[in-house]
Amino acid sequence: MTAEAGGGDLLKIYDVSMMIHDGMMVYKNEEGKRPHLKVLKKMPADNLNESSLTINLHTGTHVDAPYHMDEKGNTVEKLDLTKLMTRCRVLDMTQVCGGISREDLITQEIEREAFILLKTVNSFSEEFSPEFVYLEKSGAEFLAEQRIFGVGIDALGIERNQPEHETHKLLMGKGIIIIEGLRLKDVAEGTYFMCALPLKIKGADGAPARVVLLETKPYFEE
Amino acid sequence: MTAEAGGGDLLKIYDVSMMIHDGMMVYKNEEGKRPHLKVLKKMPADNLNESSLTINLHTGTHVDAPYHMDEKGNTVEKLDLTKLMTRCRVLDMTQVCGGISREDLITQEIEREAFILLKTVNSFSEEFSPEFVYLEKSGAEFLAEQRIFGVGIDALGIERNQPEHETHKLLMGKGIIIIEGLRLKDVAEGTYFMCALPLKIKGADGAPARVVLLETKPYFEE
Repeated sequence: MTAEAGGGDLLKIYDVSMMIHDGMMVYKNEEGKRPHLKVLKKMPADNLNESSLTINLHTGTHVDAPYHMDEKGNTVEKLDLTKLMTRCRVLDMTQVCGGISREDLITQEIEREAFILLKTVNSFSEEFSPEFVYLEKSGAEFLAEQRIFGVGIDALGIERNQPEHETHKLLMGKGIIIIEGLRLKDVAEGTYFMCALPLKIKGADGAPARVVLLETKPYFEE
Repeated sequence: MTAEAGGGDLLKIYDVSMMIHDGMMVYKNEEGKRPHLKVLKKMPADNLNESSLTINLHTGTHVDAPYHMDEKGNTVEKLDLTKLMTRCRVLDMTQVCGGISREDLITQEIEREAFILLKTVNSFSEEFSPEFVYLEKSGAEFLAEQRIFGVGIDALGIERNQPEHETHKLLMGKGIIIIEGLRLKDVAEGTYFMCALPLKIKGADGAPARVVLLETKPYFEE
């Protein structure tokens, strides 16, 4: 998909959001995590079509707020949009099985003051796998040491089976924003401008988001 | 709010989205249009905070899909993102009472292949007014004649008391995207880059959206 932006520069837009629908992949296949679209008005009986959506805030592509794991953490409407509309670096982690570790990341080009997106084999399946690739504690420690704005992953959880939530807490403790449920199959490793816009829900522990990556020259390249 | 984008250019981000909460302004104060945040897990009894949201797709800042008014119209997930991530022109319509007409618009600078945002007195109140400023049929006709990508307004409806929905249908008939429920109080008349990202809901008549305007030089200025 391409568009002429102001000034005549070419933009390419990658939509890296999951489709929201009743049959979509949800975390651990829990029925309670499925979204539900309810038809309220239907043509022709009514003179328009109108629906409502019920959705768990952690279903599909979403942003976690620190309050998700920390009673004193920020809620989602308070997240700094300048960290969500920013340069991002997509890292190819498709060779990793299990957890992404410090060793997997240390050889990568990590940009400071940017978002890091982890592209894994998760992006190539629309079925929930209990063996999904996640960010393990040592990988989270490494990223928490960098001065990054945030980290996104194509799993519905950035951690897996961590009762103490070390991965979430290491990142959130450094103010690093977490995005889960990305779809990165069609995006090559590289640098983009990310627009990740969560719904502005007051007091919430997270929010569903639409996330797109823009490829544009020469503005966002150094 | 400011941020350094790639290349060191300064971005200013205006968040023009309504806050989503139980007590927010809704169309005609209908109880059924109020969003509801339901707490599913709560610390410290649970080891994290987790909620779900139920929201009418036309509550708060949202994008209307053509299917809202036309059985054969596109549903929201099919909208072209290049028309939602684009230049936009904010027009100062704060002097208009009632309906915005062709006469109100004909003297304005209407940019083609851009989004037009109508800033009215609606942006200065958080109470629903049955007398809200809207786009009347002649104004919609005028905009439908221009080659614009879309039109946004700071009312919860772009039309008011039109049983035949002429305003919606004139615009949608030309493929013009409609955004409702913007908050434009803090934005001056001028040209911006708009990122309007509706949730990607399959088969839906509309979707709640987060909408931001970027002010940036010199990239988006000609």
